[in-house]
Amino acid sequence: MLYRSWGSSSDEASDYTNSIHEDAEITEQVKLTMKAHVISLFLSGTVDKPVTRDLIKAINSFKEVKQGYEDVHEALEDHLIKEVGEPGGWVGLARSRNDHVATALRLKTRDLLDELLNSLLTLREALLSKAEENKEVIFPVYTHFQLAQPSTLSHYLLYIEEELSSRWRNIFSELSQLNRSPLGSGAIVGTNLKVDRQKEATMLGFDDIVYNTISATASRSDIISVVLEVANLMVSMSRIAEDMVLLSSNMIDVVQLPDSHVSTSSLMPHKRNAVTMETLRAKAGLIIGEVTSILSIYKGTPSGYDLDLQEMNLHYWNVLEEAIRAVKILKSAISGMVVKREVMDVKSLSTDEAELTSIQNKVPYRKAYFDVASRIKQGSYQSNLKPQDSIRMKAVIGSPNPDLITEEIKTKRKFLSQDREKLTSFSLKVRNGMNLMKVIEDDLLQE
Amino acid sequence: MLYRSWGSSSDEASDYTNSIHEDAEITEQVKLTMKAHVISLFLSGTVDKPVTRDLIKAINSFKEVKQGYEDVHEALEDHLIKEVGEPGGWVGLARSRNDHVATALRLKTRDLLDELLNSLLTLREALLSKAEENKEVIFPVYTHFQLAQPSTLSHYLLYIEEELSSRWRNIFSELSQLNRSPLGSGAIVGTNLKVDRQKEATMLGFDDIVYNTISATASRSDIISVVLEVANLMVSMSRIAEDMVLLSSNMIDVVQLPDSHVSTSSLMPHKRNAVTMETLRAKAGLIIGEVTSILSIYKGTPSGYDLDLQEMNLHYWNVLEEAIRAVKILKSAISGMVVKREVMDVKSLSTDEAELTSIQNKVPYRKAYFDVASRIKQGSYQSNLKPQDSIRMKAVIGSPNPDLITEEIKTKRKFLSQDREKLTSFSLKVRNGMNLMKVIEDDLLQE
Amino acid sequence: MLYRSWGSSSDEASDYTNSIHEDAEITEQVKLTMKAHVISLFLSGTVDKPVTRDLIKAINSFKEVKQGYEDVHEALEDHLIKEVGEPGGWVGLARSRNDHVATALRLKTRDLLDELLNSLLTLREALLSKAEENKEVIFPVYTHFQLAQPSTLSHYLLYIEEELSSRWRNIFSELSQLNRSPLGSGAIVGTNLKVDRQKEATMLGFDDIVYNTISATASRSDIISVVLEVANLMVSMSRIAEDMVLLSSNMIDVVQLPDSHVSTSSLMPHKRNAVTMETLRAKAGLIIGEVTSILSIYKGTPSGYDLDLQEMNLHYWNVLEEAIRAVKILKSAISGMVVKREVMDVKSLSTDEAELTSIQNKVPYRKAYFDVASRIKQGSYQSNLKPQDSIRMKAVIGSPNPDLITEEIKTKRKFLSQDREKLTSFSLKVRNGMNLMKVIEDDLLQE
Amino acid sequence: MLYRSWGSSSDEASDYTNSIHEDAEITEQVKLTMKAHVISLFLSGTVDKPVTRDLIKAINSFKEVKQGYEDVHEALEDHLIKEVGEPGGWVGLARSRNDHVATALRLKTRDLLDELLNSLLTLREALLSKAEENKEVIFPVYTHFQLAQPSTLSHYLLYIEEELSSRWRNIFSELSQLNRSPLGSGAIVGTNLKVDRQKEATMLGFDDIVYNTISATASRSDIISVVLEVANLMVSMSRIAEDMVLLSSNMIDVVQLPDSHVSTSSLMPHKRNAVTMETLRAKAGLIIGEVTSILSIYKGTPSGYDLDLQEMNLHYWNVLEEAIRAVKILKSAISGMVVKREVMDVKSLSTDEAELTSIQNKVPYRKAYFDVASRIKQGSYQSNLKPQDSIRMKAVIGSPNPDLITEEIKTKRKFLSQDREKLTSFSLKVRNGMNLMKVIEDDLLQE
Repeated sequence: MLYRSWGSSSDEASDYTNSIHEDAEITEQVKLTMKAHVISLFLSGTVDKPVTRDLIKAINSFKEVKQGYEDVHEALEDHLIKEVGEPGGWVGLARSRNDHVATALRLKTRDLLDELLNSLLTLREALLSKAEENKEVIFPVYTHFQLAQPSTLSHYLLYIEEELSSRWRNIFSELSQLNRSPLGSGAIVGTNLKVDRQKEATMLGFDDIVYNTISATASRSDIISVVLEVANLMVSMSRIAEDMVLLSSNMIDVVQLPDSHVSTSSLMPHKRNAVTMETLRAKAGLIIGEVTSILSIYKGTPSGYDLDLQEMNLHYWNVLEEAIRAVKILKSAISGMVVKREVMDVKSLSTDEAELTSIQNKVPYRKAYFDVASRIKQGSYQSNLKPQDSIRMKAVIGSPNPDLITEEIKTKRKFLSQDREKLTSFSLKVRNGMNLMKVIEDDLLQE
Repeated sequence: MLYRSWGSSSDEASDYTNSIHEDAEITEQVKLTMKAHVISLFLSGTVDKPVTRDLIKAINSFKEVKQGYEDVHEALEDHLIKEVGEPGGWVGLARSRNDHVATALRLKTRDLLDELLNSLLTLREALLSKAEENKEVIFPVYTHFQLAQPSTLSHYLLYIEEELSSRWRNIFSELSQLNRSPLGSGAIVGTNLKVDRQKEATMLGFDDIVYNTISATASRSDIISVVLEVANLMVSMSRIAEDMVLLSSNMIDVVQLPDSHVSTSSLMPHKRNAVTMETLRAKAGLIIGEVTSILSIYKGTPSGYDLDLQEMNLHYWNVLEEAIRAVKILKSAISGMVVKREVMDVKSLSTDEAELTSIQNKVPYRKAYFDVASRIKQGSYQSNLKPQDSIRMKAVIGSPNPDLITEEIKTKRKFLSQDREKLTSFSLKVRNGMNLMKVIEDDLLQE
Repeated sequence: MLYRSWGSSSDEASDYTNSIHEDAEITEQVKLTMKAHVISLFLSGTVDKPVTRDLIKAINSFKEVKQGYEDVHEALEDHLIKEVGEPGGWVGLARSRNDHVATALRLKTRDLLDELLNSLLTLREALLSKAEENKEVIFPVYTHFQLAQPSTLSHYLLYIEEELSSRWRNIFSELSQLNRSPLGSGAIVGTNLKVDRQKEATMLGFDDIVYNTISATASRSDIISVVLEVANLMVSMSRIAEDMVLLSSNMIDVVQLPDSHVSTSSLMPHKRNAVTMETLRAKAGLIIGEVTSILSIYKGTPSGYDLDLQEMNLHYWNVLEEAIRAVKILKSAISGMVVKREVMDVKSLSTDEAELTSIQNKVPYRKAYFDVASRIKQGSYQSNLKPQDSIRMKAVIGSPNPDLITEEIKTKRKFLSQDREKLTSFSLKVRNGMNLMKVIEDDLLQE
Repeated sequence: MLYRSWGSSSDEASDYTNSIHEDAEITEQVKLTMKAHVISLFLSGTVDKPVTRDLIKAINSFKEVKQGYEDVHEALEDHLIKEVGEPGGWVGLARSRNDHVATALRLKTRDLLDELLNSLLTLREALLSKAEENKEVIFPVYTHFQLAQPSTLSHYLLYIEEELSSRWRNIFSELSQLNRSPLGSGAIVGTNLKVDRQKEATMLGFDDIVYNTISATASRSDIISVVLEVANLMVSMSRIAEDMVLLSSNMIDVVQLPDSHVSTSSLMPHKRNAVTMETLRAKAGLIIGEVTSILSIYKGTPSGYDLDLQEMNLHYWNVLEEAIRAVKILKSAISGMVVKREVMDVKSLSTDEAELTSIQNKVPYRKAYFDVASRIKQGSYQSNLKPQDSIRMKAVIGSPNPDLITEEIKTKRKFLSQDREKLTSFSLKVRNGMNLMKVIEDDLLQE
């Protein structure tokens, strides 16, 4: 209870509104933010070196938020004042919880995105490798969940890779708006102390600042952007999980998931339930709701910081952390999954026949199509083709034809390599900024 | 790891899919369900009295779910087998986790609804009492957030009461579908053992059974119904919270919230932020998302139990518990809130003038209206009326006229009393069923 | 442009905010509401008989909303003034668009619910009849989409019926809050004219009034309640649709949908896509979003009517009309669907074997279970049972045992008959109220 | 009824599942896609020049989808066959509705995004211009809807601009994934005809192709990405609309909206309701629901095209078109809005005093803060500062200090100019591709 001018120490506001539990997730980022702020106060000539040193030490010794505080910011400042004495109160100058939490949220999001983007690169690599080895393994692809035309496991795996790489690039491109610093914006109009916001930004590895102080303190849109795109990724993965649940059913029995991904029943001794894939699928539904929570809460606020924004925080991490877990579990499932049998229906070769008739006999396709269709309807349709023939006939890039798959994998490897370099380069820039702050900190502590 | 036929003890399925954390919420209900099941096995002549007694004791001694289990059901059965020995394995007969969790979820929901409905009755009582005392206190009501016509605090409080009582009755009426027993339905087709499902239902305080065993084990719709209606209640309360945030703003300054409901800023020493009301408002947004999660997950499943359903559980309790907290915080805020000043705008009396002209001078309303409107537009509008005159002129039930308010409160008190009796009677019936089981249990333990 | 005191005739407000398109859905209900209001003005002695007669005639001659109006209410009043002359302006007295639209929305919702509840009764009847004829037809039921234990088509159909009947009862029970009249509440505080709100309610077939005038004019919660419950129904039906899509896939091939429910591909001549069931499933997703829209919009408003509420209207009808269409399409699909083959896996009899061992040999179930489980894992599991044996062994009500199914259908028929009576009785009461108004109207017109 | 092998001409599938209404939105894009496909068939040597010419003419003469078709694709092909005769059936080769609709959806989305991004540039320009003229106009900014510290209209307008420019860049950056061609991917595995997918892509102004044919035909994630980000934009604009509704209320009366944005009441002649801003706010809630619909539907499908995807289409356009309308209405409202009065509370200067004390007297901020806070609590707080003094003291970039505002506008103008160039350059590239196709078309038609 540091700031309270109103209310009593055991009041309902505090019980109902405190964010101690949620703030555990951002404690490290709040400490980093405070450190940049303290160094900024020192650089502006406001706080002298000994007090700055004591403050840095005290920040480093802060562990966790205890009961009785509204949030991590109050707890941290109280800790600093208790450790450093009255001069600890300098940290209240030229900052508020509004700009500090906005900064910490961006740092935390950046950390989680780095982990997510890296885990996606790993999964994409695994998909390309497995695709290379399964160019001839027949695999069912369907439209309307009806077996469509013959395909291969490679073709299916490259589909997953393409979905993931598209999301990867969108998430990465949103980093440039996210990675901007709100620090130095005070509660909403900035501060009367001349602090260098660009310098603070650099020390925290940001690319630029969020200029306007209302936007800096009260907007969550840059974070929401990435959370929305991660939700989109999650739903894409859910469709893959759905495929796995269906194809590994004993009623279809095409796919065998690794033993470590299935579970049994307490009553029925024979079950092999695809529980990890069911859970991943459900988590996507969960995340649709988290996104709805975030947007509904945010929409309900006027401009300027409102406490409503605090209720959104936990959901950012839930979405990002669930996505990271999902990428990892999907990597494990897909890597270990094997194709048990060729599922085939001779009628799934009918399209090839209509195409061949049209191309070779110069017959307009619709005519060839109706000819085949009527034989199917009469039940007289037959074919000499094998699934392997069908896939070899495919003539466009992106199709399951093994030669074209080889070519596609080459292109995809190139893209993957480019994406990896972009992320490495981004991370390096972030680290350079943070190192700068570390050098200043070390310098202060050494003396 | 009791049931696992597949997978290893430290596998990914278990890490990713276990529900130990969530199951802590339903441990007591799972124990009750197991107790009814064990007594049912005893009554059917399947398990003898000594083993039954040991099982009951072992159920009672079960405390919490430890790491290493998939869920509370596996942990409980393992505990029973460890306590009772091989005969403990009898409890696996004629039941599965599917019917047990479905039963426990309904019991838990029933418990929380009982608490919610009671807390709503308390709030409604408080609203009626405060309404009785504030029939002449002028209060702003608005449409489009523009001051409309004069009203009173009583009128506003009765509005809240009417909203709450309508939700109360809908929630209560949904209890009859919710309070049906799934027990004895096994995994999905029932069991070969002849257990008395109606008897089991009675012992757990249910009104009837869910007949079909697929519905009993794999449907969550009865729970979703009440969760949806509670979300509806929550959004109604959010609108009230929004009123409080706006009217207590220093830019309007009509309402003063109790000190225990406001907080200040870390930077700006003058702030009195309506933080509990902001949080309540945000929680409503949170719950919109929880409901979306639940529906999105559920929609994505075919019939029959899927593990996706497990991911929905936690959200039921979140919604219900947040609603209970919100009812309590709203009661505290509204009870302690005071009106600081009459907010008035002479133009808000213009409707009264147009009505009076129309009624007294026998002029069609639209003509009287345009006459007043043109004076307002020209800036020449004036009125001798006072807000108090305006409210006294109101002539329909439900309006702020103090005499009609008195009448309305009387009606509302009657409704409240009826609702209280209905809930008491429902609770009594539940308790009678549970007592029956308790008698059997005591009888078994005594010998 | 009747009411405008501000703005010009071709302004942006009107272009952006008019609800002409949406209001087409409630034109009849708005006319009914206006008629009750006019008769009420007449009964209160405010408007004389000749003017009342002219107004009634003019209401009856109103056809549709033309461009240039904000909404149906303005268009109707303008029509009345044009038809009746200046005395037409009497209808502006003691009413506003706020109480009129609130009334019309409840009338429209009531109409659609009547249709929905009736179509559900028809579907439930069809399900019970088909269940009666298919007690021995083996049908796959699954948990985790893995074949579980043998069941029958009857068992599956009764599951659907139980889901629908539970939703039916909840929807019906919410009618008592919905069917209350807001009429006579003016803009928000009622009116200075003494109109009889209870009499108005009776004439429109309402059970009671919404007492408080703020609640009456500005609350949508009673409508939201039924929309939410209908969304719940829709999601239940979506799970059935999902079953149909999956089981009719040529990879499983258990169910054949009627020809009128499948479609083919423009490229692949062999496809039999379960398009109606896919659409139904998608409509459930659509409705989850509609519900989210409604709740998000509503949450974002303070108390009192806001124009935001207008944007919610269309979504009520979308949800209800899609549900009605879905019930009908589901009835057609289920009625015409046939079972093509017995899908069986000998392992799905393993539970019966474990149960029999436990019951007959007095072996604790868990022991019997592990014995069977280990044989399955070794690949040595075999069984002499037939699916028909399995279903005959089931011993609890609600299971697929044909004898118990017969008993269950009997109970369900009784419930269905009770529900039908309740709806008939409700409709009768509504019609009696409306007839009363008709009698007054005829009386006025005759003279 | 062109493709139907199953079903009858008046069946339920067609009634329930046809998309004629929705497809009106993409007719032009479907025609463009078909034209590129026909030219591609010609370039591959499959269709000769005369037939190609006839097909192009027939595509150009196609107007609208009539009743009796499943969708625009079937209607267009039927039209081509009727116009061109049996050779019209060639268009069925090497394509399916799946790749054609996927292509048309991306073209349509691209068109709408171009319009949206342009309208945002116009609004940003207007904001910067108005900001330039209002650097000294005092404007209330608040946190927790409590007046915080003095600010200016410029400061508030630059906040809006910063929000919009951040969304602008994210939307623009997602164009690179969106603007990839699915054409040539057939139903799901491509085709046996060797068509040049990269050439087709170029002719439609795409940057690249979606490689994998499953991803190309069955993924909607690239479209969903932009729809999600546009929803995010919409919610940001909703917060601004909320500000306008609140600040223009007669209870606060700081902002006057243009007459063309307000409306009145049918009962209360004095009302000036901020109806466009209420509608914009509601539309944001609507769009949250549309996004939920899209994600819920999409999540519920396995991989491969499902008819569920058709139900998502309309919602893409709703979201994008509503956003375009909202940008325009917001531009009009903000451009015409005037500040009526300085809203001030002397206590909102207390932060300045605490900061000054801390900075000038070298007192740790927390001490200065508590000193001011206690004076406020005792009611003895006073200040000689004027709001103008306060804003001049602000010392960080992004604050309302007029000198720093001037600097900020300069930076923002530079960013705006860069963004405009990026969009121009993108549009040029698209147009170049389309021109290439036009040249080929003209060439074919001329002969």
